[in-house]
Amino acid sequence: MLSRDENERVTRVGPGTPMGETMRRYWLPALLAWELPEPDCAPVRVKLLGEEMVAFRDTQGRIGLLDERCPHRQASLFLGRNEDCGLRCVYHGWKFDVDGRCVDMMNEPEELGFAGKIRTGAYPTVEAGGLIWAYLGPADRKPAPPHFAWTQAPGSHRHVSKVIQETNWLQGLEGGIDTSHVPILHRVLRADSSRPGFKPGDPFVRGKAPNLELDVTDYGYRYAGLRPLDGGDMHVRAYHFIMPFHQIRPARSTSGGGYSGAAGHIWVPIDDENTMVYNWELSVTAPLTEEDRLETRLGNGPLDVDQATFRSKRNRENNYLLDRRIQKTETFTGIDGVNAQDRAVQESMGAIGDRTREHLGPADRAVIQARRLLLQATRTVEAGGTPPGIEPTYYGLHPAEAVVSRETDWRSLLAPTPSTETLQRV
Amino acid sequence: MLSRDENERVTRVGPGTPMGETMRRYWLPALLAWELPEPDCAPVRVKLLGEEMVAFRDTQGRIGLLDERCPHRQASLFLGRNEDCGLRCVYHGWKFDVDGRCVDMMNEPEELGFAGKIRTGAYPTVEAGGLIWAYLGPADRKPAPPHFAWTQAPGSHRHVSKVIQETNWLQGLEGGIDTSHVPILHRVLRADSSRPGFKPGDPFVRGKAPNLELDVTDYGYRYAGLRPLDGGDMHVRAYHFIMPFHQIRPARSTSGGGYSGAAGHIWVPIDDENTMVYNWELSVTAPLTEEDRLETRLGNGPLDVDQATFRSKRNRENNYLLDRRIQKTETFTGIDGVNAQDRAVQESMGAIGDRTREHLGPADRAVIQARRLLLQATRTVEAGGTPPGIEPTYYGLHPAEAVVSRETDWRSLLAPTPSTETLQRV
Amino acid sequence: MLSRDENERVTRVGPGTPMGETMRRYWLPALLAWELPEPDCAPVRVKLLGEEMVAFRDTQGRIGLLDERCPHRQASLFLGRNEDCGLRCVYHGWKFDVDGRCVDMMNEPEELGFAGKIRTGAYPTVEAGGLIWAYLGPADRKPAPPHFAWTQAPGSHRHVSKVIQETNWLQGLEGGIDTSHVPILHRVLRADSSRPGFKPGDPFVRGKAPNLELDVTDYGYRYAGLRPLDGGDMHVRAYHFIMPFHQIRPARSTSGGGYSGAAGHIWVPIDDENTMVYNWELSVTAPLTEEDRLETRLGNGPLDVDQATFRSKRNRENNYLLDRRIQKTETFTGIDGVNAQDRAVQESMGAIGDRTREHLGPADRAVIQARRLLLQATRTVEAGGTPPGIEPTYYGLHPAEAVVSRETDWRSLLAPTPSTETLQRV
Repeated sequence: MLSRDENERVTRVGPGTPMGETMRRYWLPALLAWELPEPDCAPVRVKLLGEEMVAFRDTQGRIGLLDERCPHRQASLFLGRNEDCGLRCVYHGWKFDVDGRCVDMMNEPEELGFAGKIRTGAYPTVEAGGLIWAYLGPADRKPAPPHFAWTQAPGSHRHVSKVIQETNWLQGLEGGIDTSHVPILHRVLRADSSRPGFKPGDPFVRGKAPNLELDVTDYGYRYAGLRPLDGGDMHVRAYHFIMPFHQIRPARSTSGGGYSGAAGHIWVPIDDENTMVYNWELSVTAPLTEEDRLETRLGNGPLDVDQATFRSKRNRENNYLLDRRIQKTETFTGIDGVNAQDRAVQESMGAIGDRTREHLGPADRAVIQARRLLLQATRTVEAGGTPPGIEPTYYGLHPAEAVVSRETDWRSLLAPTPSTETLQRV
Repeated sequence: MLSRDENERVTRVGPGTPMGETMRRYWLPALLAWELPEPDCAPVRVKLLGEEMVAFRDTQGRIGLLDERCPHRQASLFLGRNEDCGLRCVYHGWKFDVDGRCVDMMNEPEELGFAGKIRTGAYPTVEAGGLIWAYLGPADRKPAPPHFAWTQAPGSHRHVSKVIQETNWLQGLEGGIDTSHVPILHRVLRADSSRPGFKPGDPFVRGKAPNLELDVTDYGYRYAGLRPLDGGDMHVRAYHFIMPFHQIRPARSTSGGGYSGAAGHIWVPIDDENTMVYNWELSVTAPLTEEDRLETRLGNGPLDVDQATFRSKRNRENNYLLDRRIQKTETFTGIDGVNAQDRAVQESMGAIGDRTREHLGPADRAVIQARRLLLQATRTVEAGGTPPGIEPTYYGLHPAEAVVSRETDWRSLLAPTPSTETLQRV
Repeated sequence: MLSRDENERVTRVGPGTPMGETMRRYWLPALLAWELPEPDCAPVRVKLLGEEMVAFRDTQGRIGLLDERCPHRQASLFLGRNEDCGLRCVYHGWKFDVDGRCVDMMNEPEELGFAGKIRTGAYPTVEAGGLIWAYLGPADRKPAPPHFAWTQAPGSHRHVSKVIQETNWLQGLEGGIDTSHVPILHRVLRADSSRPGFKPGDPFVRGKAPNLELDVTDYGYRYAGLRPLDGGDMHVRAYHFIMPFHQIRPARSTSGGGYSGAAGHIWVPIDDENTMVYNWELSVTAPLTEEDRLETRLGNGPLDVDQATFRSKRNRENNYLLDRRIQKTETFTGIDGVNAQDRAVQESMGAIGDRTREHLGPADRAVIQARRLLLQATRTVEAGGTPPGIEPTYYGLHPAEAVVSRETDWRSLLAPTPSTETLQRV
C-alpha cells in the first residue's frame, strides 16, 4: 500500500517528474533492431516516457533518434524522407543528420546560412542484444552501454520480441518480480492438457505457499521463492530485479524438460498509461529453435501479437478471449498464453493501479521492496546523485530454478556462471 | 428550467453526491436474473451509480455482488473463477464468498491466518420479477424488498428486458413520465401502415392537446392526460411515478385491440452519462406470447438489442437508422421502434441535458413535479430522513387507459384491482 | 514563433474568445448548396465556430439555419420534420420557421398562445458561389454578402467541394498562404510519372529558393514568390490572402498546359480542433469538365472524400496511405493528392500546432504576416472597430502565375482583369 503521493511519484514518467527524471538516467530500449532493417529504410515512430520521437537508420547504417516534430513548423519527421545521410522533412525540405544537425534547407537560399543555426533534439543510441537503446538524460551523466549476459550472447542463442501493455509500467514490473502468482495464475489444471502453464506434477505447483527471501544489492535485489516439497526437498526459483525495470528469471525449454537458460522482461514506459514490454530469452544450452521464437507458450510471438502495431490479439476489448469452459476444466484463467494471462490481470487493475486500496501480505515482499528502491532512487536523483543499477555489478547475472535439499543456500545457485548440471535439476 | 446547481444536484449519482446518496437508499435493478443462469456460472460485470462490481451465483445458488477489484492488488474479479461457494481471483488465488469474506488465499501460508482479516465490498441482493436487485446504501436503512404488482406475477404473465441509453438517467425518466409527447413522437401517419405507433384513428391521437392532472402521493405521484374527444367523451391515460425512477403505464396487447395490462421502465444509472433501462410488461389477461417477448413494437427485444452488450442496433452512431422517406410519408420520426424513438430524442439532448436553457409549459407539469420531488428527496436524505417510495404504499399500483365521459374522475380508474372490463374500454 | 498567449488568441474560436468574436464579423461558409437540394429536403447538421446548428430549406426554398437544440427540452432539430414552411421538433411537435419563430406547438392548447412567446436562435444566410454562407455576429454589424470573382461566375466555370481537416483552422490557412512549400512538398521526382504534383521540368521546381515579396492591403495582403531561372527570367506565383481565411491562388488546367484561372481554399473552423476546408476553382477560359470536378489531382473530390461525412479516405489513421516505395522513387511524400499531402503535414503538427517551438526564417514571411494581421484584427474588434476584409476592395481579385523577365514588377500581373495572354505564359 502506498500513499496517493507515493503512487503518483513512482508511476508518472513525463519530463520533469521525479520518476521520469530517474528513468532518464538509464539506457532505455527504444525499438527492436529489425524495425530498422537496412540503411535508408522507412523511419519509425517511437514514444518513450511520454516523448514523441522518430528513429531511422541512415545511409551509413548509423541510428538516429530525433524529436518527432521538425523544429521549423512542427510537422512530423515520421512523414520524412530518409535519404543521403539524413532525415528530410517533406514540408519545406529541412534535413537532419543522426546528431540532430540541420544539414540542408530547401526553402531558404543557401547563402543565408540559416541551416547551420538549427539543431533538433537528438538522443544517443546503442545497438545491443537485438535492441536499439536510447539515452534521454543529461549528457554528462550517460552510463556505460547496457551489458547483460543476454545482450552478449550470439543471435542464435538469443531472442527478443515486444508487445504493448495498456497500463502504467509499474504494474508490469510488479507482476514480473512477483514469483508468488506464478503457479497460481499460470496453472494448468490437468496433467494431460496441451495448454501452456505449470501442471499438477510440477514441483513449482506441488510446493506450498512459498517462503520468500530477498537480498537488496547495489543493482536492485536478488530474490527467491522457496517452496517446501514432500520428503525434505524444496523447489527454488530465484530472480534478479535490476533497476529500474529489468527482470531476469529462469526459463524453460519449449522442447520439454528442465531449465534451459534465462529469460526476462523489460517494462519500458511509452507514457503514463502504456508500456512497451520487451521479452528476451537466452539459451545457455542449444541454439533457439524456430518454435522457441514463436513464443506460443508466452503468447508474445508473431502468431499472437500484430508485428506492425505490437498489439496483442488477446486484449482488453475482447476479454483476452477468455473461455469459461476452459477455465472450468483445463487452465486456471481460461486464457491462453502465460504473458497474456499476466496482461489480463494487470490491465484489469486500471491504467494506473490504485495502490492506496491494497492489502499486502508477506508474499508481496518483492513488490514492496521494488517500490521502496524506486522511491529511494527518485530522491537520490533529486539530491544530485546517481541511482543504482548503472555500475557494472549487474553484468552477467544469472537466475536459477532447482529442486534441492532444504538446507541448501539458494544464493549458491546464483553463482556467476551456473553449471549446466545445476540448471537442469528441475 | 433548473439552475445550474439544481441540474448538477438532480443528475449526478456518484458516491457522495446528493442524488447518489439518495439513490443508494433504494433497491436498484442490477441485472437480469437470466444473466446468472445457474450455480457456478460465469461472473458478470455490473456498473451501478458509477461503481464497478461483479455479480455471480455461487454453488448453492446464492447471488454475490462484490466490488470488482480484489482488495489484495486490485485485479478484477470478473476474470475470477466461480467455484465451490466463492469467487476466486486468478492472480493470487484469493477467494471471496457472497458476503465478501475472504475464505481462502493460495499465495500465503494458511497458518498465517491472513485470509480471516480480509473482507471486500459486498452488497445485499434480492431476486424479484426476473431481476436481481441490489442495495448499496447504509445497512441500517435497508428497505423491504421491492414489491410491485408486476414483480408478484407469474413468469408466464411477465416479461423483462434491458437496453443501454447513452444519457444521464433523468433524461430517460423525464421522457417516460411525460405523456404529452406520446401521440406526437410515436405517431403513425397512415392508418394502413404496419409500423408500430399510434395511428390516426386512435383516441389518443384524435384527442386534442391534453389537460394534465397530477396528484402528489407518498410514493411519488399519479398523473393523467385528459384529451377531449369530439362528442363529449375524453381519452384518459393515467400513470404512476414511483420514486426514484419507476414508471407504471398502461400497456397494449400486440395481438391488437385494447388495454392488456401494465408496463413500465426503470431508469437505473450506470454512471452519470449512461443508463440501463429495464423494460417490463405485465399481462392481466392471457399469458404473454413469444411475439410479445420479442418487443418489436418497442424496439427493446432480442431482434433490436444485442443480448450480450445490451446496445441497441439503432443508435446514435447510425442516426437510429432514420429513414427520411418513411418520415415524410409513414411515421412522425422515420425511426422504427417506439422506445428507439424515445432514445433518439433523449440522446440528442446530449449526455446530460442542459436544463438551464429550457422553456417549459403547462404540458411539462409531470416533468417539473418529478424534478421537484427528486430535489426534495436529496434534501430529506441530507437531513437524515427517509426519502419517499420505500413504504408499502406503492405495492399493487395499476395504470389505466380508457375512453370515458368527460365527467368521470380518472382517479376512479386507478382502483387497486381494475376490472378487465374497464381495462378494455379503449 | 508566437508566445503561448498569442497562440491561444489566434487559434481559439468559441463564443466569447477574441478570434471567435472576430470570425463572427464575417460571412462564413456553412455548407455546400447541394446539401440542401430542394424544398422540404432532409435537414443537415452544421457546426461552426464550436456551435451546433441545423440547416434546412423550407417549402418556399428559403434557407434556415437554427440552433440545433429545440428551446423546449433541448432535443435535436436534426431529427426534425421539414414540412410546410418550418422545421418541426419530433419530440413535442414545436415548429420553427427560417427566422426562428415558433409557429406551432402540438403539445399545448393553441388558445394558450405559448408558441408566440418562443423564438430559437436563427442566423442570416445567403447563397453564393455554390455555397450557403452564414452570419453569426451582431445584427448591426452584418457586412454586405460575400462577393468574389469566383462567386460571380456561372456554374459551368466554377466548382466547389469540401473536406474535413483534423486540425485547428490556422494550420490550414498557414499552409495555404505559404508558397515556399509548394514545389517541395508537392514535388514529383520523375518527369515520366503520372502522379499529380510539380515535375522536374516545371519552372516552379527549376527555380531556386524564392525571394518573397508581400504588400499588406486593406483586405489582407498580396504576395509573390519570385524564383530566379537560368537565363535571366524568373518564375512568379502571386496570391491573395483575404481576411480572415480566404486564399486566392493561380490554378492549372487538368488538361495540361498553363494557367487556366484561379482556385482557392477557405478554412472554416468547425471547432478549435477541426476545420471544414472549402475548395473552389474558377476557369476563366473554358467550362470546367467532369474530370476537373473529380479533383483527382488535389485529392478533394468524390473519389477521395466520402461525400456523406466529408472525411478523406487518406487520413491520419491510415498514415494517408503513404507508400515508402513511391516516396523513394516517384514523389516527394509517397502520398497521392496535392491537398492530401497538405493535410498530412498539417495534421502531423497536432490538433493545435505549438507555435512557441518554431524556428521561422525569411521564407515564412507570409505566415508571419497573416498571424500579425489576425492578431491585430482581434484587437480592433475588442476596441469596437471593424476588422479588414469586409469592404468591397477584395471584390474581383485575381492571382497570377507567369515566367517573366527579372525586371518585371509582379504587381502588374495582378491587374483587375488579367488578359488570357498573360495567364498562359507559364
